[in-house]
Amino acid sequence: MTYIVKGFAAMSADTPLVPFNVPRRALRTDDVQIDILYTGVCHSDLHMARNDWGVSQFPVVPGHEIVGRVKAVGSAVTKFKVGDLVGVGCLVDSCRSCYHCQHDLEQYCEQGSTQTYGDVDRHDHTPTYGGYSKEIVVSDAFVLSVPENLDTKAVPPVLCAGITTWSPLRHWNVGKGSKVAVVGLGGLGHMAIKLAKALGAEVTLFTRSPAKSQDALRLGASQIIVSTDEAQMKSVYNQFDLIIDTVPYSHDVSPYMPTLAIDGTLVFVGLIGKHPDFSTVPLVLGRRSIAGSAIGGIAETQELLDFCGKHNIVSDVEMINMADINTAYERMLKSDVKYRFVIDIANTL
Amino acid sequence: MTYIVKGFAAMSADTPLVPFNVPRRALRTDDVQIDILYTGVCHSDLHMARNDWGVSQFPVVPGHEIVGRVKAVGSAVTKFKVGDLVGVGCLVDSCRSCYHCQHDLEQYCEQGSTQTYGDVDRHDHTPTYGGYSKEIVVSDAFVLSVPENLDTKAVPPVLCAGITTWSPLRHWNVGKGSKVAVVGLGGLGHMAIKLAKALGAEVTLFTRSPAKSQDALRLGASQIIVSTDEAQMKSVYNQFDLIIDTVPYSHDVSPYMPTLAIDGTLVFVGLIGKHPDFSTVPLVLGRRSIAGSAIGGIAETQELLDFCGKHNIVSDVEMINMADINTAYERMLKSDVKYRFVIDIANTL
Repeated sequence: MTYIVKGFAAMSADTPLVPFNVPRRALRTDDVQIDILYTGVCHSDLHMARNDWGVSQFPVVPGHEIVGRVKAVGSAVTKFKVGDLVGVGCLVDSCRSCYHCQHDLEQYCEQGSTQTYGDVDRHDHTPTYGGYSKEIVVSDAFVLSVPENLDTKAVPPVLCAGITTWSPLRHWNVGKGSKVAVVGLGGLGHMAIKLAKALGAEVTLFTRSPAKSQDALRLGASQIIVSTDEAQMKSVYNQFDLIIDTVPYSHDVSPYMPTLAIDGTLVFVGLIGKHPDFSTVPLVLGRRSIAGSAIGGIAETQELLDFCGKHNIVSDVEMINMADINTAYERMLKSDVKYRFVIDIANTL
Repeated sequence: MTYIVKGFAAMSADTPLVPFNVPRRALRTDDVQIDILYTGVCHSDLHMARNDWGVSQFPVVPGHEIVGRVKAVGSAVTKFKVGDLVGVGCLVDSCRSCYHCQHDLEQYCEQGSTQTYGDVDRHDHTPTYGGYSKEIVVSDAFVLSVPENLDTKAVPPVLCAGITTWSPLRHWNVGKGSKVAVVGLGGLGHMAIKLAKALGAEVTLFTRSPAKSQDALRLGASQIIVSTDEAQMKSVYNQFDLIIDTVPYSHDVSPYMPTLAIDGTLVFVGLIGKHPDFSTVPLVLGRRSIAGSAIGGIAETQELLDFCGKHNIVSDVEMINMADINTAYERMLKSDVKYRFVIDIANTL
């Protein structure tokens, strides 16, 4: 039997989020019922609430950076028990049988993975609703263990901003001796710096705002390059093994390309859209690559959470009340957040 | 003492190539003096002769697909002896000490490698002149051994068109089970098909000309996809581990991107210029890459020649006389060659 929990939803693309009764399914045998403590606020939440990508089905209950405690488990669940601290990220299901699902790449599931919100459950075909709600019910295979030693309220962004930057760091083998640059210092960028640094890399921040220098150094960067300063840019030509570009709007990466080392890669993790025309010269004359990467698989997300537990890494967060979500969206649009809003679901919803 | 050999040169960007007395240096201790037998005609020759890239210093003696026999060697040369069948490709020197030179990547030499023509010798600072000439003198480290069992006149294109496609095939680990697609069937494309096939890959040709089907199958392709046919394109979505794009003029690779498998790479080997705007969606949602690659290192070129010897692979060539070079250029501009012109230097210059 479906039951109802309190939540917040966008009822249309051009109205603010409002209280909404979120239906949750009765537990299937593999399900985990989670009392949500905290939910991070991702840029995608705003895009989906406002139908910026033209795919939203209303009502939209956003939220895919979810941390909570297990309230109940289905009869077949052995991996989790009541009281466990757990997380749910961007995915709640996938086909589980294709080549990619079998190789821990659920985010690239050939049949399309099931998104935590704004999607449709593969079994009962009901809409999926995200973490702007008191509870969520998720198949155990997509539930993650959250280390108890971390500052719990600062963990949610690890589940999207974190894994989105962790996955390319791991895929392109970043470690001790690597030189990594990060473009943009926001939710993703600040996690990229922390994680690359913890992996042993030397980290550079590219930014247009010299004002961000102090913060970048605090987060783990060893230098800041102002990307509009040609002399500074030239000083880092042929340097970087990997550039993680977190900027979510259309922009030209040409100025960054000569700063890649031979065989270096610039990877888009924020931009889902048009890139302007570009010259192939830095690619051909240095075997450089332009790539993209989407979140990460479930095993990789667990690996990241464990790594964060070991290295005491969490996000820099600003806590908000559920009722303040619309104000938070306005501030996000002005990049006025250091570096991620997290909703105190347990106490304010 | 400098000596003089017969050759052909472009004396300016807008005049045809004419006979030219090419100065060659007296042998240094590490030099190999080569009697040129055959020289292939590469698109770069035409670009440099006509100053299409704005870097030409006239006179330009083109030609960087050179096969000949050793006529003499410097006092310190042990690797080659008089009479050996040898080749010279696009490079005749590099700094030999930077990280890339030390790792068999002379083409990416940090100080810039020395090109076979249109460049300046690192020691005596004289211009380098290429293979449209009776003889050439090259440091032994940049001279290659050519297998005697091959059809010698069809070997020269291996030294540029061949290595340019071989290097990405090797770098991206193409082998048995790989699915490779080739864009464009010209000098580079026809070598890409032969080499990928010989490495064990299943090879697809993307082309706009269905008329090329028979030839592509003969060269080793297992299928031909007409890139303007949407249904055919859709039939190969998510297929290819590597797409080698040999097209030398500006074009949009967006239609090819969805045909890459997850983690697949499209590599430019022909286009040195602008690519139009593109969507990052297929990159991000499939961890796909757009890369570039330039020729190959000396060790890798030797590896290729040995591979060609073993698998009896040469280029499909059309022989021309030296005096017919200007007509050949006109035909090249119309892609009217299957698939590479080779100049019979020994008999016609």
